[in-house]
Amino acid sequence: MSGESDLIHALRALANDPAARGLADDAAVLDWGGKRLVLTHDMLVESVHFLPGDPPETVAWKLLAVNLSDLAAKGARPIGALMGYSLRGDPDWDAGFVRGLKVALNHFGVPLLGGDTVTSPTRMLGLTLLGEASGSVPDRRGANMGDALFVTGTLGDAALGLSLLQAGTDAPAALTEAYRLPLPQLEAGAMISVFSPAMMDVSDGLLIDAARMADASQVGIRIDLDALPLSADFVAIAGSDRAARLRAATGGDDYQLLFVSGRPLPILPCPVTRIGQIVRGSGVHLHDSGGDVTLPDRLGWEHQ
Amino acid sequence: MSGESDLIHALRALANDPAARGLADDAAVLDWGGKRLVLTHDMLVESVHFLPGDPPETVAWKLLAVNLSDLAAKGARPIGALMGYSLRGDPDWDAGFVRGLKVALNHFGVPLLGGDTVTSPTRMLGLTLLGEASGSVPDRRGANMGDALFVTGTLGDAALGLSLLQAGTDAPAALTEAYRLPLPQLEAGAMISVFSPAMMDVSDGLLIDAARMADASQVGIRIDLDALPLSADFVAIAGSDRAARLRAATGGDDYQLLFVSGRPLPILPCPVTRIGQIVRGSGVHLHDSGGDVTLPDRLGWEHQ
Repeated sequence: MSGESDLIHALRALANDPAARGLADDAAVLDWGGKRLVLTHDMLVESVHFLPGDPPETVAWKLLAVNLSDLAAKGARPIGALMGYSLRGDPDWDAGFVRGLKVALNHFGVPLLGGDTVTSPTRMLGLTLLGEASGSVPDRRGANMGDALFVTGTLGDAALGLSLLQAGTDAPAALTEAYRLPLPQLEAGAMISVFSPAMMDVSDGLLIDAARMADASQVGIRIDLDALPLSADFVAIAGSDRAARLRAATGGDDYQLLFVSGRPLPILPCPVTRIGQIVRGSGVHLHDSGGDVTLPDRLGWEHQ
Repeated sequence: MSGESDLIHALRALANDPAARGLADDAAVLDWGGKRLVLTHDMLVESVHFLPGDPPETVAWKLLAVNLSDLAAKGARPIGALMGYSLRGDPDWDAGFVRGLKVALNHFGVPLLGGDTVTSPTRMLGLTLLGEASGSVPDRRGANMGDALFVTGTLGDAALGLSLLQAGTDAPAALTEAYRLPLPQLEAGAMISVFSPAMMDVSDGLLIDAARMADASQVGIRIDLDALPLSADFVAIAGSDRAARLRAATGGDDYQLLFVSGRPLPILPCPVTRIGQIVRGSGVHLHDSGGDVTLPDRLGWEHQ
C-alpha cells in the first residue's frame, strides 16, 4: 500500500454492502425495519480540524454540526449521537466542551445515546450520528446531464475566518463564526431531498467536492466562477476578483449544500445560487466572464 | 470540573434519553421502527489499548471484537459498522490493518458501512457498531437479590498475555491470542439474554465490572475467588493461589460475559461458571476457602 488514497481504495473494496454507497457518499443509507436509517461518523483532530486556541464550547458545536451537515445532505433528520472523547488531563477544557455540547445538542434536538472516553496524547473527537430519512435519499452518484448545479448560502467565509485567526488578525465575527460555529442546512436539505437526485455538503472545498460528485456520477461539471455566492464580509477583506473567487472555491469548511436539479426550484428556507451545469465528460471545468479558467493545483482539502 | 469522573458525570447528565441507559450500560438501546436498535462505540488508542508492536492485523480484529462484545452483552446481532481511522503515514501498517479488518468483518459477518479517515500524530481507532435485538435486552441495572452470578470462559488470560509481551518473555500462544484476538461471546449472549435480566461484558476487570453492575442495580455482589475459572495456561504460569486469583479478577481485556440468573441455566455454547451471588447492600465482597478477602486497591482499569 503506497499511501492514503490506497487505504481509502482498500476500505472501499471492503465496504461492498449497498448501504455503504461505496464509501463515496456523505453517509450510509440502510433500509431497516421498514425505514431508512442514515449513518455518518466524522472526526475532529486538534491542529488539523480545529485550532488549539479555539474555545472548547465551539469545538463541541462544530463536532455536532459537521456530522449534522452530512445528514442534511441526505435530507435526514437526526435521531441520536454516540461520541468518542479523548481525555488529556485538562478539566477546564473538558468542562467547556460539555457546556458547548449541551447547547448544541439542545439547539438541534439530538439525544446523546452513548460513546467512549479514552486517554490520548492527541485531542481527537469522533461523533456518530444516526438519522432517519423518509422517501428518496439524494446520492452523489445521481447527477444527470443537463441538470443545473446549485449551492446554498455563501462560500469561503469559514476558510477566510480561519486564515485571519491563524494570522492573529482582527476578523469580523461573521467570518470566525462561520469557521467555529457552522450551521448545518437541515431544513433546506430535507426540502431539497424531495426533488434533487444528487446532493452533498461542501466540507473540503467547492471544487474538490464538485469533482467528487462528477466522479461519482460519471459526468462533467461546469462552474461559473462569477456566479459564486460571496458574503459582504468576504468581499470587503478578500475582494471578488478571480483569485478571491478561486480562494472561496477551495477553502473548505463551508457546510453548505451542493445539489442538482432538472427543474425550477421551489422556495427554500435559505439563499440558493445557481453556479453551474452538469455536462458530458468528466471532472470540473471553470469559466468566468474572461473565458475558461484553469483549475488550481489544489482543489481543496484531501484526507484531512 | 476536577477530573475524569467529573466529565463522565457531566456527560451522563446530558444523556437523559432513556435509550442512553444513563451511559451506564454496554450499549444504547433504541426502540425504532418497531424494532430494537443496539448501539455501541469503543475506541482503541496505541500504547493505551494495544502495544505499538502488536501486529496491525490483530489490532483490527480487536477493534471489531471489543465492540461486538458489547453487543453480545445485550444479546444483539451485528447489523453494520462505521469506523474512524487515523493515518500516520505508515502504509505497511495501514495495509496490515485492512487485511485484518477484512478477515474480522468476514468472520463475524459485519458489513462496513462508513466512517472517516483523519491524519493524527496518535494512532487512534474508533468503531461504532449497530446491532439488532429481539425481545428483552439485559441491563446492568437488572440484578435482583438472590440471583446467582455467572461468568463465561476463563478470566485473566489476556492480562497475563499482555504482561508477558511487555516483559519480552516467551508466552503460550493461547495467552497472547487472548489479548490480541479476543472472541466476543455473541452466540452465548443471544441465548443468555432470553433469561438473564442483567448482563455485561468483562472488559476492564471482573471486580471493577462487577462493582459497576452492583452500583447500577443497587445491590451487593458476593464473589467466591476459589470459583474463578482459570485456564491451564494461566495456572501453569501464574499459579492459582489467592494472589493469582486476584490478578485474574482485576486484569481486564477478558471479553467474557458476566450475568445473573434466578433459575438453573440451560445448556450454553461455551463454558459457564457460577462465581457468586447477588446480596443485599452495595459493592463487591470477596471470599475464598480462607474466609473473607479484602478488596484490592485497584479493581481493574478505569477510564482507559
